[in-house]
Amino acid sequence: MVINGPNLDRLGKRQPEVYGSETLADVQERLSALAAQLGRRVGFFQSNHEGEIIDKVHECADHGAAIIINPGGLTHTSVVLRDALAEIADGAGFVEVHISNVHAREAFRGHSYLSPIALGVIAGLGTAGYDLALRFVDERVLPQR
Amino acid sequence: MVINGPNLDRLGKRQPEVYGSETLADVQERLSALAAQLGRRVGFFQSNHEGEIIDKVHECADHGAAIIINPGGLTHTSVVLRDALAEIADGAGFVEVHISNVHAREAFRGHSYLSPIALGVIAGLGTAGYDLALRFVDERVLPQR
Amino acid sequence: MVINGPNLDRLGKRQPEVYGSETLADVQERLSALAAQLGRRVGFFQSNHEGEIIDKVHECADHGAAIIINPGGLTHTSVVLRDALAEIADGAGFVEVHISNVHAREAFRGHSYLSPIALGVIAGLGTAGYDLALRFVDERVLPQR
Amino acid sequence: MVINGPNLDRLGKRQPEVYGSETLADVQERLSALAAQLGRRVGFFQSNHEGEIIDKVHECADHGAAIIINPGGLTHTSVVLRDALAEIADGAGFVEVHISNVHAREAFRGHSYLSPIALGVIAGLGTAGYDLALRFVDERVLPQR
Amino acid sequence: MVINGPNLDRLGKRQPEVYGSETLADVQERLSALAAQLGRRVGFFQSNHEGEIIDKVHECADHGAAIIINPGGLTHTSVVLRDALAEIADGAGFVEVHISNVHAREAFRGHSYLSPIALGVIAGLGTAGYDLALRFVDERVLPQR
Amino acid sequence: MVINGPNLDRLGKRQPEVYGSETLADVQERLSALAAQLGRRVGFFQSNHEGEIIDKVHECADHGAAIIINPGGLTHTSVVLRDALAEIADGAGFVEVHISNVHAREAFRGHSYLSPIALGVIAGLGTAGYDLALRFVDERVLPQR
Amino acid sequence: MVINGPNLDRLGKRQPEVYGSETLADVQERLSALAAQLGRRVGFFQSNHEGEIIDKVHECADHGAAIIINPGGLTHTSVVLRDALAEIADGAGFVEVHISNVHAREAFRGHSYLSPIALGVIAGLGTAGYDLALRFVDERVLPQR
Amino acid sequence: MVINGPNLDRLGKRQPEVYGSETLADVQERLSALAAQLGRRVGFFQSNHEGEIIDKVHECADHGAAIIINPGGLTHTSVVLRDALAEIADGAGFVEVHISNVHAREAFRGHSYLSPIALGVIAGLGTAGYDLALRFVDERVLPQR
Amino acid sequence: MVINGPNLDRLGKRQPEVYGSETLADVQERLSALAAQLGRRVGFFQSNHEGEIIDKVHECADHGAAIIINPGGLTHTSVVLRDALAEIADGAGFVEVHISNVHAREAFRGHSYLSPIALGVIAGLGTAGYDLALRFVDERVLPQR
Amino acid sequence: MVINGPNLDRLGKRQPEVYGSETLADVQERLSALAAQLGRRVGFFQSNHEGEIIDKVHECADHGAAIIINPGGLTHTSVVLRDALAEIADGAGFVEVHISNVHAREAFRGHSYLSPIALGVIAGLGTAGYDLALRFVDERVLPQR
Amino acid sequence: MVINGPNLDRLGKRQPEVYGSETLADVQERLSALAAQLGRRVGFFQSNHEGEIIDKVHECADHGAAIIINPGGLTHTSVVLRDALAEIADGAGFVEVHISNVHAREAFRGHSYLSPIALGVIAGLGTAGYDLALRFVDERVLPQR
Amino acid sequence: MVINGPNLDRLGKRQPEVYGSETLADVQERLSALAAQLGRRVGFFQSNHEGEIIDKVHECADHGAAIIINPGGLTHTSVVLRDALAEIADGAGFVEVHISNVHAREAFRGHSYLSPIALGVIAGLGTAGYDLALRFVDERVLPQR
Repeated sequence: MVINGPNLDRLGKRQPEVYGSETLADVQERLSALAAQLGRRVGFFQSNHEGEIIDKVHECADHGAAIIINPGGLTHTSVVLRDALAEIADGAGFVEVHISNVHAREAFRGHSYLSPIALGVIAGLGTAGYDLALRFVDERVLPQR
Repeated sequence: MVINGPNLDRLGKRQPEVYGSETLADVQERLSALAAQLGRRVGFFQSNHEGEIIDKVHECADHGAAIIINPGGLTHTSVVLRDALAEIADGAGFVEVHISNVHAREAFRGHSYLSPIALGVIAGLGTAGYDLALRFVDERVLPQR
Repeated sequence: MVINGPNLDRLGKRQPEVYGSETLADVQERLSALAAQLGRRVGFFQSNHEGEIIDKVHECADHGAAIIINPGGLTHTSVVLRDALAEIADGAGFVEVHISNVHAREAFRGHSYLSPIALGVIAGLGTAGYDLALRFVDERVLPQR
Repeated sequence: MVINGPNLDRLGKRQPEVYGSETLADVQERLSALAAQLGRRVGFFQSNHEGEIIDKVHECADHGAAIIINPGGLTHTSVVLRDALAEIADGAGFVEVHISNVHAREAFRGHSYLSPIALGVIAGLGTAGYDLALRFVDERVLPQR
Repeated sequence: MVINGPNLDRLGKRQPEVYGSETLADVQERLSALAAQLGRRVGFFQSNHEGEIIDKVHECADHGAAIIINPGGLTHTSVVLRDALAEIADGAGFVEVHISNVHAREAFRGHSYLSPIALGVIAGLGTAGYDLALRFVDERVLPQR
Repeated sequence: MVINGPNLDRLGKRQPEVYGSETLADVQERLSALAAQLGRRVGFFQSNHEGEIIDKVHECADHGAAIIINPGGLTHTSVVLRDALAEIADGAGFVEVHISNVHAREAFRGHSYLSPIALGVIAGLGTAGYDLALRFVDERVLPQR
Repeated sequence: MVINGPNLDRLGKRQPEVYGSETLADVQERLSALAAQLGRRVGFFQSNHEGEIIDKVHECADHGAAIIINPGGLTHTSVVLRDALAEIADGAGFVEVHISNVHAREAFRGHSYLSPIALGVIAGLGTAGYDLALRFVDERVLPQR
Repeated sequence: MVINGPNLDRLGKRQPEVYGSETLADVQERLSALAAQLGRRVGFFQSNHEGEIIDKVHECADHGAAIIINPGGLTHTSVVLRDALAEIADGAGFVEVHISNVHAREAFRGHSYLSPIALGVIAGLGTAGYDLALRFVDERVLPQR
Repeated sequence: MVINGPNLDRLGKRQPEVYGSETLADVQERLSALAAQLGRRVGFFQSNHEGEIIDKVHECADHGAAIIINPGGLTHTSVVLRDALAEIADGAGFVEVHISNVHAREAFRGHSYLSPIALGVIAGLGTAGYDLALRFVDERVLPQR
Repeated sequence: MVINGPNLDRLGKRQPEVYGSETLADVQERLSALAAQLGRRVGFFQSNHEGEIIDKVHECADHGAAIIINPGGLTHTSVVLRDALAEIADGAGFVEVHISNVHAREAFRGHSYLSPIALGVIAGLGTAGYDLALRFVDERVLPQR
Repeated sequence: MVINGPNLDRLGKRQPEVYGSETLADVQERLSALAAQLGRRVGFFQSNHEGEIIDKVHECADHGAAIIINPGGLTHTSVVLRDALAEIADGAGFVEVHISNVHAREAFRGHSYLSPIALGVIAGLGTAGYDLALRFVDERVLPQR
Repeated sequence: MVINGPNLDRLGKRQPEVYGSETLADVQERLSALAAQLGRRVGFFQSNHEGEIIDKVHECADHGAAIIINPGGLTHTSVVLRDALAEIADGAGFVEVHISNVHAREAFRGHSYLSPIALGVIAGLGTAGYDLALRFVDERVLPQR
């Protein structure tokens, strides 16, 4: 499952000089193709509502799914999202992805409530970060076919 | 009214070594029985959506109800929930309950936006904390019958 | 567009000694009249749900609208709202309004995630702050008719 | 064992608007009755001398007793009391009780050296906090009869 | 009384990209006209000397005048100006105005010694801030004619 | 009542370059003479035991006495002493005296738990500080004869 | 020399509930009488201008005078006043006086740039603080006649 | 160029439960194979000497090479390495890789002097992080063949 | 003189996995033997009462004795003990000993009020720390026989 | 223009062990000679009044002059002086000079509001710092003759 | 192995009032003699190069040796040295020695990156600290012969 | 001796917009000429290796030489360099030079471990800073010929 948090529906519209001109649909299409090539199934979810994301994470926990998540601004503020993802961390685990280099921006973006319980973090590699996370999950996290 | 915040629907599923194996339904059933024994009416509400919890708090404010609330991770981050509960604090008041001992966990769990305006706080006594809060509200907060 | 955040639906009910006895409907009616007098169109939106406010901000971004926003308690905690408003800041811009003087209250109300990207801030002037913001947007932000 | 720290001998005399007009003797009498009703034995100790409290805690450790403690101002400053109670924490455990809501008072009262090793904390529920702690110890901490 | 602090005599000369090209005389002329239109009397004072501003504030306190003040850099550093304005705050009150958005500049500009005792604050709305403050004082602060 | 805290029995022995060569007995003799001259009764107490000082403060509270106290190092660390003195503060009040200038020594001596509830503080004026405090209590605190 | 800083010319006018109803002239008259009684000469100076106070301190340094100074709000902010008084500290020395108990007010009043180089500090004893400081300077600082 | 900092020569020997049992030679072999497959040339360098790493970075700067660097503990302490890499950042850029999840370890590992000028960061994905970084550099950083 | 602070009477009982199974009596016996071998006299004192320890330190100061002290939890909180030991520091001096490695435990154990005035500190070497301190005092502190 | 701030008129009188025995007049004479030798015109200004210094800086801004300034204690506290000098920084620029090594003195002297907008800073080189600054301005800042 | 870090080759030359007049060769000779007496082998290494020290620590790790290390100024700044020593800590362990009392010097010397993973720390006991560390390693760390 | 730290061999190559286009060789040539003109001998050393710089500083200490040092990024992180330079500070002394204005760059460049023990600091005056330092050392530090 690839989860995108608040404002990521604006990808390609918002601050294209920071996030590039690809839309989220473009990225998801590319990821679907890559997943198919790797022989994996992948689902997508985006919401601007913290509560809906938590509901979705719970659903993944029930299915034992691994998660690739770009939590957007919730990264820096949401303990409740951390608490939801703690269940994933106890299971298959999740990878945290940021399109921009959060360390090169405002100081408050340098702190993440999620990173300490993530498998790992990829930041600043643009939308390629999703692809790399997917490859990582395929090779190292999910059971080999 | 007993309000439970984000992720508490996972009670019994999530980190049972921390929170025990009772489900939220189990707890609510027990509280209903205790309330009946005390001759009080009690309602229950749980949501992973901050906005819905605020709506519910406003509703309680309109009815002059006292609240027992386990705000989950919102405890540490939500000024808007504090602002909603400020109306309750001006009225019947509310008791803040945490199942786990928040002071024995990550440092960020040591701060609560809600405690300064609560009647009081019970933390670390497991789900028994709800029962104790209910007894307290019955004896000391609500008018005696 | 005039957006009001969580708990502002309680205006006139909650802590009237701080916020006055006018309701939000009263304020919106007065602002409508002022807008009409200035020859401008104005819309209103209030929600206790962060996600809905973000959706609405995105909608405004699509229309190139300017925003007057009283974010309530989200002011101090919401990076995701900041990220949504960043698109507005790149366009017509937004004015941040607080009814009470946030600097005369708890220390945590002295910090705003939104102010650094706002056109400006009006705080403590009661509901008159909205009127003044509307006049400002009319005279200095929107193209003159 | 119910231990009360410095200044709690002034209960009913000192700041009755914060702590109520009951004396410590009143509270202890009520707790004795409750313990009898629950079929438990309870002892009481109060001192203004940190050293005497530590001696008493050691004595409890030797007997394997559980402790209900209101450490008064030592809560915020005493590492030696924490070290003494660490032995209790390794055994039956202890519950920390505060009559007033420490979170609604001076900032330095928001920190406790004891809470991280306590079973749990009850604060702000007046002298009813002792009763609730006793019920908790009876039901959840001590072996059932 | 409209008081302008240090360096505001440079308005129109200094950093016009931040403060605009209007001179202080231009602004005062416009405010005089607005005051006349509102049927109010308005005086003006500017000084680079903290001591002279304090003397002027004392004079206003003796006359029971309301003040609109842009304290410039003294905002962030002057306790003595705060102490002088405390007398105004006990009387008619004062409004704090900043031409630029202080929250979008250096971090030290985010703190004001004056805001906690002001009626309110207007920041970042350019020289229009003075007009809005004057309207506010006319409608909400001074007795209606 | 003039109370001296831990280590003040060493006056004249310990660090005479900081505290002078007078002994505590010398000072008390001089204060007795001054009290007699002013027509007031004065008692003296010194202890190295925090608990004994608290017991003594409680005794003073029962008699409605004013206190002149040099708390020594407890100044910087003792919440329990503050809590005891809070009763005095609600009554006749107390004056805090330091022989040395605490602000010219280690940084941790710059903070006092007691000052915020004291009538006032005299520091750095040597043992003359006791005399001045006695004069102050005589003239301004106690009822005039 | 008795120097009073900014806003102390308002004594008796400003916040009489904090500072009492005596005027500065009243205090100076009383101090003159006390000085005469002690056989000392005393001069007075008050200014709202930091620069004038520094000029006056330099003048005192040239005459080898001791100073009693109530620096008002400059206490907390003025390094330049500290630097001027450093010359006095190398000579006869100065006593810092505050009428109100600065430790019982806003946190920023708890820090003084001057205290570390003062002979000592008297705070919170009302205008009696000046009298006590004068007695101290007479007995302990100036050469005995 | 793939640069590994201090202690990474111990890979496979040191804390294998954190870093896995692969040696650095194993990893470099795998990366060589991947580079060959991608049609890129890759060099390797490891040193425990900060100065040698800086010399090597300068050499890369002269050749316009992109760098993949795991700086080990220098990440958190070395301004001189940052200054050397700043030249790379002005050119082809560099990717920062950490084998372990630095955010899940000691707090001091949460800060990096290098991240703000890196293209991006990969942390916690084990030695797979190097492969992903190499793919990223191949696809997004180096000119396409 | 070898002084042991609060809770060290529990040595061998409390947290043996941290402090070992030797009792304090065992240690003191061994130290007596070592002292005899070195031709030195050694005394022992343990108390859970800060006040009694201070009294004992004063006694040592009167005799010009050197002290080996394990202050237990008072290390981190007691200014009054520091003030008492300052007299020893002006004389023969004292060595601070900790059985456990305080730097490997809670952060608050990393600060000592005593270390800055001690001759030196031994931490983490178990009860052997006392022996080493005794050897040091014998060879380097006390006059050679 | 060479500007000296508060207390620098005391040069040679105040703390000669820190600042040397030269008077400001001596220094200015030497600088005049050096300026003449370099074929430059130099003016001098000293004041203990922040406001007068700001007036003088504005005058320099009107003439496009470069400034060498020793701001004395205003360095650490004056935002208004920074704001005035910002105009110079936009023009010819200014050099900040300190006679003593501010980094070797009290911690608060380590921060300067002015350095971030200065051309550069010379500290601790005694009054030679002015000469070096003058040489620098002659060679690198002013247009070559 | 006894390792000495940067600048310890200056022992006896540098600040002899702090470190004594013995040279490092003197100390090593004495330690060799003590080791011989204890029947142990001891090696010595000193370097001003962090990298060389790390290489040496790795070598020790390969041999399973215990280390006595005086890391000099690297104590406070070197994460890479900590990472190297972590391998030793997993094996025989290391003792950290400081000749001077680091707690009595600049504040930055109060923090050590190494202490949390050391067996223990000896500070301030002069060069005798090495001897004591050697005795400790002989008796408690190494297997008894 | 003129010592240049890490990365200064890149002068003229790295960030020429910050550091100018002169190479280090150019600067050293100019300084040699100036030294010759002043009748002084000057040596040069540059290294990217902290250890080599320390070795060189020790060599200077042995010769009693004064040092002009631009420590580059080691300024902000190296305690070991400070310790080495402490010997110079006890002798002829050293001047710290920075080409760029470190106060106008990242916050971490505002702190120097070296400045508190330097004779003085020159920052932001470009490579002219070396010339000025050389003139200073010639005139004020070295004995006059």
